[in-house]
Amino acid sequence: MHILILGAAGMVGRKLTERLVRDGRLGDAAITKLTLQDVVAPAKPSGAAMPVDCITCDFAEPGAAAPLVVGRPDTIFHLAAIVSGEAEADFDKGYRINLDGTRQLLEAIRAVGGGYRPRMVFTSSIAVFGAPFHEKIEDEFFHTPLTSYGTQKAICELLITDFSRRGFLDGISIRLPTVCVRPGRPNKAASGFFSNIIREPLNGEEAVLPVAEDVRHWHATPRSTVGFLLHAGTMDLVQMGWRRGLTMPGLSCTVGEQIAALARVAGSKVAARVRREPDPTIIGIVAGWPRDFSPVRARELGFTTIEKTFDDIIRIHIEDELQGRFVS
Amino acid sequence: MHILILGAAGMVGRKLTERLVRDGRLGDAAITKLTLQDVVAPAKPSGAAMPVDCITCDFAEPGAAAPLVVGRPDTIFHLAAIVSGEAEADFDKGYRINLDGTRQLLEAIRAVGGGYRPRMVFTSSIAVFGAPFHEKIEDEFFHTPLTSYGTQKAICELLITDFSRRGFLDGISIRLPTVCVRPGRPNKAASGFFSNIIREPLNGEEAVLPVAEDVRHWHATPRSTVGFLLHAGTMDLVQMGWRRGLTMPGLSCTVGEQIAALARVAGSKVAARVRREPDPTIIGIVAGWPRDFSPVRARELGFTTIEKTFDDIIRIHIEDELQGRFVS
Repeated sequence: MHILILGAAGMVGRKLTERLVRDGRLGDAAITKLTLQDVVAPAKPSGAAMPVDCITCDFAEPGAAAPLVVGRPDTIFHLAAIVSGEAEADFDKGYRINLDGTRQLLEAIRAVGGGYRPRMVFTSSIAVFGAPFHEKIEDEFFHTPLTSYGTQKAICELLITDFSRRGFLDGISIRLPTVCVRPGRPNKAASGFFSNIIREPLNGEEAVLPVAEDVRHWHATPRSTVGFLLHAGTMDLVQMGWRRGLTMPGLSCTVGEQIAALARVAGSKVAARVRREPDPTIIGIVAGWPRDFSPVRARELGFTTIEKTFDDIIRIHIEDELQGRFVS
Repeated sequence: MHILILGAAGMVGRKLTERLVRDGRLGDAAITKLTLQDVVAPAKPSGAAMPVDCITCDFAEPGAAAPLVVGRPDTIFHLAAIVSGEAEADFDKGYRINLDGTRQLLEAIRAVGGGYRPRMVFTSSIAVFGAPFHEKIEDEFFHTPLTSYGTQKAICELLITDFSRRGFLDGISIRLPTVCVRPGRPNKAASGFFSNIIREPLNGEEAVLPVAEDVRHWHATPRSTVGFLLHAGTMDLVQMGWRRGLTMPGLSCTVGEQIAALARVAGSKVAARVRREPDPTIIGIVAGWPRDFSPVRARELGFTTIEKTFDDIIRIHIEDELQGRFVS
């Protein structure tokens, strides 16, 4: 099996690559080739048993998609996108990468012909939902994005379903929860604090909490996120009919519950490194975000999270990212 | 007020043009200019008090949209599309006209600049919904189109909302019920029989009913449809927030109820001109169509139908299209 990962240099792409290299297989099929693409050079994984091609290109440039699919990869993980904040700041760039790029990719796949019909797993986002909504958003709730990013993701879901229905590919769009704890340095994403308030205190650093402790949000670990991708890459999609977009399971909890979990898992001294500093801009942005879901359909289709509590989320971070150690 | 109608030569476009010419105004504003566009030459309305420009062009051709909006029309009725059957038969043409055409139009409006922010009324369709669904589809039900046409309409709704949110225009998408009774000759649309079984018997002709009498569907008269467009063109859209897509009110009834109404309004001899001839293909297509809605939000926002019963629908057809006469 030949696997192509678009956006392989991003956090989720790197985690997925590591896992595929470690497993050597996707479901029942041995991986015979891995192609990693990103706009910045993807790191060549060490110790890979299969040949790995690394391609650095902007997949949304006209003509860029065709060479990526001409080798007829069996499974395509399409993670490439510019993030919410950037798509909002730069209207043209957002539409060019997040919409036109995906459309050109779909057309390039269609143009291969000869019965080529790859599995495509597309990472959509809970940003397809926009307030006001029910406390728990159901699977059949409509998409009313409040950002251009969410709009672009919702449109790509529709395209991937229609291209699948027409027989050009076999696609699924999975709406990822906010990945928590996100490894690495704090970034400028408005959602960054959900991870910062856990990761930084465990590193002995102070972290800023810009919202109230009753803010509720929807989380999944990087480990569960990779699990969603693998399941989406191997499951039988026929059972989904032509409803190929799906909210992934996650854990809903408040910021206060996150901090209480941190105190339980790592001690109150660690939890005390969270500094409250309300930021009206971030408070306003976060007010429009989903808080909780009833992802009944995803669970029925076999998607599961590894973590059952936010304590688990913190323990998994310590295990996967910190070799079991933190600054107490 | 300068009004531009895209797709002015179609049935709804002609009805809208007639009404605007007759009224001479849209809401409180006198119409100072009317621009009619279509891919076939729109007929110049007779007796118009305002100047009328007729433009024949394919609005989806690269560069075609800019000249249409350079005159800064205040209100744009965007009715241009290829129909469901054609979009399904010709994948590329459907996406080119129904998606790329609309996107280029939106970009052309944005490119005018200088604070230009026209009202745009886009005719979407109940084809954004696909079975299975609830018996009455609610306003917050998700969009799972089962045709490329429905996919394209759902995508355009998302784009128009995002372009509105970003301040490039002030748009609304209204999902029209099946227009019934559709005037003119029988056409090849799978939905044609809903009108054929009324219109043809009133003309003294036989009509074929290809489905069972318990098939239920969602209807509005041409007169109500024009009313929806006028209201969408004049109402304050701020109250809609960024949920700018809306299912229009309609009348839900079965084919059996349609025929019973025909017998009441025009007599049993007329109703006897409906010939039952089941067509498995059409039965299959229609099975995936919406049957009924709860268009609560549209009603709250002031959209109303003139007809209260299917008897009214037939009477309005006889009045508006047949000068009050039919073949008994």
